[in-house]
Amino acid sequence: MQLTIDWVVGFVDGEGCFHVGITEHPDMRTGYQVLPEFTVVQHERDLQILYALKRFFGFGVVRKNHAERYAYRVRKLEHLVQLCEFFLRHPLKTRKNVDFRKFRRIVLMMNEGRHLTREGLAEIVKLAASMNSAQRPCLEAIKARLAAG
Amino acid sequence: MQLTIDWVVGFVDGEGCFHVGITEHPDMRTGYQVLPEFTVVQHERDLQILYALKRFFGFGVVRKNHAERYAYRVRKLEHLVQLCEFFLRHPLKTRKNVDFRKFRRIVLMMNEGRHLTREGLAEIVKLAASMNSAQRPCLEAIKARLAAG
Repeated sequence: MQLTIDWVVGFVDGEGCFHVGITEHPDMRTGYQVLPEFTVVQHERDLQILYALKRFFGFGVVRKNHAERYAYRVRKLEHLVQLCEFFLRHPLKTRKNVDFRKFRRIVLMMNEGRHLTREGLAEIVKLAASMNSAQRPCLEAIKARLAAG
Repeated sequence: MQLTIDWVVGFVDGEGCFHVGITEHPDMRTGYQVLPEFTVVQHERDLQILYALKRFFGFGVVRKNHAERYAYRVRKLEHLVQLCEFFLRHPLKTRKNVDFRKFRRIVLMMNEGRHLTREGLAEIVKLAASMNSAQRPCLEAIKARLAAG
């Protein structure tokens, strides 16, 4: 199956998710690990679409998600940088683009190693907490802890 | 906002819904009314996308759905015929295309008035019951009633 640029943008406008996980990690200098990921989840009957996305981008993996659902997932930083270049050149049309721009800022900061500093991390947590229009109380707690110093 | 054909196909692959409602209606010759509709539902923050779809197709309405969600909706038969021509020329890439093809058969049958005959209606109910991979017990009941008599 051949995907076109515009089809991919439209499909990701509907089904894509830009997410930045932040978890405690005692081995990291800041005490926290930043885990940005891009996913597209589909029922297993559309597994072929996920593999077509993987071929289209030339990176990422397809993994079982839960129940009968599978995900196309990109986690490697160098691949996320390439993914962000794609969606910068071919912008999403829904409000998901607002999340994407925050996601991209975080990815670029990480690419410069700024997530390894306390100041950089604080900025990333603030950006991540404002994404996906979801309340994330754990991020608010991390924000407060970083602000308290 | 300008939408391209491929973006619309990709977005509908993700967010579009082809549905055929069948309800009892004593005024109809067969006793049932067939109500095919195409919808795309979005959170109100993406209301502009629904209006862009309406402009793109040149028909349909945008209506409040429930809570903070809005729908772009096409119900008029002549417009559904045009919509089906579009997705025949520009096929969906997900399994939603299977539902679309059944939807299109129903729309074309209705365009020939075949939903007004008992035989046509029975065929439509059978097609509708096999769509959207959902169990619809009420359609199974109508199928049984039409078969019985």
